[in-house]
This record gives sequence, structure tokens and C-alpha cells, in this order.
Amino acid sequence: MTSSTNEYPTKAYGATAPDSGVGPMEITRRGLRHDDVLIEISHCGICHSDLHSARNDWGFTTYPIVPGHEIVGTVAAVGESVTRHKIGDRVAIGCMVDSCLECAHCEADLEQYCLEGNTGTYNGKDRRDGSLTFGGYSTRIVCREEFVLKVPEGMPMAEAAPLLCAGITTYSPLRTWKVGPGSKVAVAGLGGLGHMGVKLAAAMGAEVTVLSRSESKRGDAEKLGAHAFLNTSDKAAMKAKRGYFDLVLNTIPVRHDVVPYLHLLRIDGVQVLVGLIGPMPEIHTGVLLGRKILTGSGIGGLAETQEMLDFCAANTILPEIEMIAMQDIETAYERMEASDIKYRFVIDMESLRAAP
Amino acid sequence: MTSSTNEYPTKAYGATAPDSGVGPMEITRRGLRHDDVLIEISHCGICHSDLHSARNDWGFTTYPIVPGHEIVGTVAAVGESVTRHKIGDRVAIGCMVDSCLECAHCEADLEQYCLEGNTGTYNGKDRRDGSLTFGGYSTRIVCREEFVLKVPEGMPMAEAAPLLCAGITTYSPLRTWKVGPGSKVAVAGLGGLGHMGVKLAAAMGAEVTVLSRSESKRGDAEKLGAHAFLNTSDKAAMKAKRGYFDLVLNTIPVRHDVVPYLHLLRIDGVQVLVGLIGPMPEIHTGVLLGRKILTGSGIGGLAETQEMLDFCAANTILPEIEMIAMQDIETAYERMEASDIKYRFVIDMESLRAAP
Repeated sequence: MTSSTNEYPTKAYGATAPDSGVGPMEITRRGLRHDDVLIEISHCGICHSDLHSARNDWGFTTYPIVPGHEIVGTVAAVGESVTRHKIGDRVAIGCMVDSCLECAHCEADLEQYCLEGNTGTYNGKDRRDGSLTFGGYSTRIVCREEFVLKVPEGMPMAEAAPLLCAGITTYSPLRTWKVGPGSKVAVAGLGGLGHMGVKLAAAMGAEVTVLSRSESKRGDAEKLGAHAFLNTSDKAAMKAKRGYFDLVLNTIPVRHDVVPYLHLLRIDGVQVLVGLIGPMPEIHTGVLLGRKILTGSGIGGLAETQEMLDFCAANTILPEIEMIAMQDIETAYERMEASDIKYRFVIDMESLRAAP
Repeated sequence: MTSSTNEYPTKAYGATAPDSGVGPMEITRRGLRHDDVLIEISHCGICHSDLHSARNDWGFTTYPIVPGHEIVGTVAAVGESVTRHKIGDRVAIGCMVDSCLECAHCEADLEQYCLEGNTGTYNGKDRRDGSLTFGGYSTRIVCREEFVLKVPEGMPMAEAAPLLCAGITTYSPLRTWKVGPGSKVAVAGLGGLGHMGVKLAAAMGAEVTVLSRSESKRGDAEKLGAHAFLNTSDKAAMKAKRGYFDLVLNTIPVRHDVVPYLHLLRIDGVQVLVGLIGPMPEIHTGVLLGRKILTGSGIGGLAETQEMLDFCAANTILPEIEMIAMQDIETAYERMEASDIKYRFVIDMESLRAAP
């Protein structure tokens, strides 16, 4: 394949309006800049954000939109100054494809909080030409080399994909709050993010408890490696664990009352919200005054994301996935809305490459 | 004065009902137990909690109530096993007069978070006989020796009083979050607590900024030792300080939106609420996802409270006070409600002792 200024016509799936659904479209990937990498995408994970963005649930979608920010594939071409990657390398892209790389936050390996704003993998604006970025629901992508990560040797590509969002979003707060052997971690919400939180926290040596309203999750929690299960509908059980946990990793993606989880924290214990749930119900300050900490966390920086990939490879941690064809995207969205997925959908991009 | 099992009839000021106002009453202090100290109260500071409790604003007042938990005085008698204090010592009592002293929290010098609950200086229930505790609006008090603190040599008694609540409540979170030289601290709310926050943070070496809606506070902020003033009504000024502060000490005692202060924090910066403001307005999780921390803090433990008193003595830090007679308590409450006090009322208990 050529490394040139020629653009790359590319098959993709995207939405053209909030109610258009996600369907086939043709997009153009830019010709390689000196520091660009062209990637043939093998798999792309499906994140709840994809669905919300495609439908403009958050109100800031620019159409057309091509979702997908859990991207893995193989390097097919590189720009003339690229040194980090070479043709044939197994690589990955997460939720961002660029940032200024010069501000205090970027210097501190916190590109996700770039003071100029990071460039989203989709629905973002290219820093150099202002064009709209298109995500991983496509057969290939062009990306600045610094934002292309390495898939560790031996890690299966399909399972690697969800690590780029669901993995790093749960790994990052566990690291920020120094979870390690002996830590008591509770995970609320057992979906794409939550199930990775359980696996990662357990691999870090923590005692992991799954919190759920539904007794039906008890078996799943155990299978994923949780040491305990706490039914949040059981008032006596909840009371017995007041003040017990060092960290509650809250991955619940819909509006809910976070106060019951604050009560579970020890003094100086932390509840980290990783789901964007919009306005939270009112919180009485009385509970915080007992030195309970409420915070949030987004994705990680580039170095931390690579660290997470390497940690998962070293500890043989992979998400539980269900593979689908690109053409089945709307069915996948419907099943996600019904919580009918254990635990992450991954698109096999051969299905799109093979399409007429 | 005798150290005996005889009870002590004592002059006090208190309320008998939510609408009774605070007026003169006679109470009885218990005869000394083996580990008790009898204190002749010289001064008692006035806290907003006094007013709220006297009027049952929070719904958990038991009447009669004698408010006051910023107490200083002189030891007048001691029980037979008391070793920490002797007659004539200058001593102080803060917001609690007992706890189990045996649980994990008490063992960790966090008696304020005793797992059995600490015993409030007023409106509490004595751990041994179940009687109602009465606070410092009175000429004397009897208290278990461990909960009696030392007023450092040379510290004036009247000014020492407010340190027992306003002082420790601001000192404790500054210590918890490791404020020191170079820390960028903002203080919201310039009342009894806030003005101590400014003085303490400055003494710890922090760069201190006062946050206020009102330009009229700028001069006061400077006088108290703040290095800067930020008018929170000035949108451009607020925007310019986004991401700037390590810690926002929020002492505002009424319901308000805490989100503008979260925006002022750097990544992993902390907003500590020390005011009990009840349910907070809804917070959009988006702001927390930028790794902003929201927490609260109450009073400190015994060791930390003594440390604070010694720190204030060593750094010549004292609150700004206005002395009043016990008989003027209702006027003081009215002025507090109108924010017409710079910055803490202190009752001269001689006024009560001298009353007919």
C-alpha cells in the first residue's frame, strides 16, 4: 500500500441524523502526513458513547458521524517521519487521536485533559485542517503516530479492542487511587466497564465486591473473579458494610442516587464515577462531612493506556466479548439498551471489508 | 472547691422550645467521676450550630438545650484519677465531650468519627448515665479529662474560644489534604470559619485567595492575610482561574451551587465542604469526570485539635472576635443571621457569673 498524499476512500458505518440509524457510508481518510500512520482496522469495540453520539443524546453531535473508539488493527503504511510504528505492527487507537502535546497537562502524560482539548476519535475536529474526525466503524483509519498504541504480543486482537475505552476507563482510577494488595474495592454496575473493573482490581490484588440491585448477578460476579457480592436492595447487608470500602468504582451509566455508595466508604474512602450520568440527584452534605470523597474519572493518557495494555497482557486479562458483523450494529445497540450483552460487543471488520 | 460526688448547681442560658429564645436557666453539673474535670468557664464562642440547634432547625434538638461548644476556662477541681489536668490549668472543650476511645476510629485519633458516635458537647447523651449534655453557655462544665484540651501558654482566653470549632474545622481539612508551602488554596465564605481558613492556610505557607460574590470583601480579605481576591460574580475572572487551585475550602453555610468552585480546581484538586448545607443542588457528573474531587470534613480529633491550638500559638494566629455579655445572646444571633459580625462572637462568662 502506498505512503503518499493520496487520500484513501474507505468503507464505513455511520449516522447522518439523530434518527437515521447507523448504516453504510463511504468516507475519505486523509493522505498520510509525515507523522501519520495508516491502520487497517481488524476489530472495533462498541461503547455506549457510540450509541449516544450517533443519536445525539448529549446534544453535541456533528453529522455525519462514524462512531467507534475501541480500535485495533495492523499498520498498512506510515508517513516519512514516523519512527514509532512500522508496516505490519499490531496497533490500537482509543478515544483520542490528537492533542497539543505541549501544554502542562500533555507534558504530564495527561493528554486526555489537554488544555487545548484533546481531539476525539470521532465527532472531533482535526487540529490541522479542521475536518471532522471519523471513528472505528470503518475498514481503515489514519492517525498521528503518538496516538497509536501497541497491542502486546500474544494478545488476541478482538479482545484487545474494548481495552481501549472500557479497559482504560476502569484502570485509570484504580491507579490514581493506588489500589493494590489488600485494597477493598467495590464495583457498581456490571456492564462493559464494570466487568473490566472487577478483573483489573482483582489482578491488582484487591478484595473485590460487586454491588448490584439484582441477586441474579451473584453468579456472574463470581465467574469474573469477584470475591464477594453485595445486594444493594438488602438493607441489612448494606448496613453491615457501612464504612468498609476503600474505593467504590461506580460504572452505572444512568442517573441514580450515589449516596448509598458513599455510606459504604471508610473515612477518606473514595467513590469514583466513570459513567457520564448527567445531573446527579441531590446529595446531602451530611454524608460528605464524614470525610467521604466523591470524584470522577475519564479515560487515561497515552502512557497509562499503553501501561494498561501491557498490564492486561502480563496478567492475561481480557474482556468478555461477543463478536458481531458490522451489518448487525442496530441490533447490537438494541441489545445494549436492554443490557442483553455479557459484556462487550466487538465488530469484526472483515464483515465490512467483505461487503459488496 | 471540692472534688466530690456533690452536684454543682450552675447558671446557664438555654432554650426550652424552638420558639422560646435563649434565656437564663439553672442547670446541674454532675458530681465529679474519678476521671472528670470541673471547669470554670471564662469564655464561650458562638457558632451557627448553636443558633440552629436552639431553634431545632435540623430537627434533632432535645429540650432543654444549653448551646455552646467553643469553651475555655480554668480547672477548678479534678476527680481522683485525673492525671492530665490540675487545678488552675487553662483548658478548653470543643464540640465533643466523650467517645468510646476503643474503636478503630478512636484508636486512630479520629474520636469525632467514633464508631459508637461521639458525645456532643450539647444536645448529646452522656455515655454512662444517659443524661442530656449541656454546653458552654454556662458558668461551669464537668467533662471527662481526655476531652479537655490545653490552652497554650500566652494565648488569650477570649480569642482561644473560637478555635475549638471554627479553628479546628478549617485546620483539619487543610492538614488532611496536605496544604503547605506553594499550595494554592481558595477560601469560599468569609465568616467565622472562612476567616480562620485564610489565616491558617496562609500560616501553612499556602497562596491564599478569597472567593466572594461581593467586591466589598476584597479589603477584608487582604487584612486577614489573603494574597488574592476572586470575585465569583466576574465571569471573566472566574474563567481565568479555571484549573488553578489545589484546594477550595468551602465554608459557605447555606445551600448553593458548588460546581463553579469545582471548575476552579486543577486535575486531582479538591473542594472540601465544611458547612452543613443540607441537600446540594444537582451536580452534573461531567465536571467531576475531569478528576475533580468533592468531599467534606467535620471537626478534628483530640490530638489534631491540640495540634491546632499549639500551631495557632506558635504562629500567633487568633480569630477576630467581638465580645458580648451572655444577656445579649439573642441580639448576637440576629446579627449573625444578617452576617453582621467580623468574625466571631465570644461570650464573656463573667457577665453570667455576675448576674443576680
